[in-house]
Amino acid sequence: MMNPFDDNYFMKRALQEAELAFEKGEVPVGAVIVVDNKIIAKTHNLTETLTDVTAHAEMQAITAAANYLGGKYLHGCTLYVTLEPCQMCAGALYWSQISKVVYGAKDEKRGCAAMGAGLHPKTRLVGGVMEDEASGLLKRFFIEKRNLN
Amino acid sequence: MMNPFDDNYFMKRALQEAELAFEKGEVPVGAVIVVDNKIIAKTHNLTETLTDVTAHAEMQAITAAANYLGGKYLHGCTLYVTLEPCQMCAGALYWSQISKVVYGAKDEKRGCAAMGAGLHPKTRLVGGVMEDEASGLLKRFFIEKRNLN
Repeated sequence: MMNPFDDNYFMKRALQEAELAFEKGEVPVGAVIVVDNKIIAKTHNLTETLTDVTAHAEMQAITAAANYLGGKYLHGCTLYVTLEPCQMCAGALYWSQISKVVYGAKDEKRGCAAMGAGLHPKTRLVGGVMEDEASGLLKRFFIEKRNLN
Repeated sequence: MMNPFDDNYFMKRALQEAELAFEKGEVPVGAVIVVDNKIIAKTHNLTETLTDVTAHAEMQAITAAANYLGGKYLHGCTLYVTLEPCQMCAGALYWSQISKVVYGAKDEKRGCAAMGAGLHPKTRLVGGVMEDEASGLLKRFFIEKRNLN
């Protein structure tokens, strides 16, 4: 029997979060954190709404998941995020010692790989899951934004 | 006439914040953000108290300063922090485009230089201000912690 709870399943939930960000005029990035096939945090980028550069989807997800778990380490957890984490988020994920990070679209310019930021040695990194959907949403956002200005 | 508002003056204020962290059993790191010689944010590490790896002094200071200014960019601001920022905090400072970062003690292992994390090209970085006081406080914290365990 196929496992319905695969990486695509959870990335779809992260994409739903990204769409909520889009509707608010935020760069559309969404995230969920999962433990034992259960979503314990779902968040989206709120940097404009909160006027706060630290309000990336991943940062909020890490805080929410730790709050849910009652401990600051995210061992056994997986983060699904629609865009490759930046160095700030990679740094927070490093401190959390999260077990796995799965991202959708690659960020060629400000992604953690391009910026040289590293995850914890305990963390497994997987990229490109539902990449077309994630990057398509971002492209649409920036085209609409350009047309409005 | 000497300028009373030099880097040492504000680093002393950051050290006072670090001492507040120490008293709470937190790794003693403190920060202030200054604009036009006025302190607009003062914070200290709260990762244990809040059970949140993202609650570094710098992260809270960035959020508080942006809240005070009503805008997410910290142009014209200087962050004083008692320990060299980690890659998470360097990443947040990158997004904030802060004008200047001054730190006390160097973090040879997890500091942004060692981890390869970069600040924004607009940001000037100065290290080693009141280094002995900042590193002395950290050493005292870890010695006391070891003796308690």
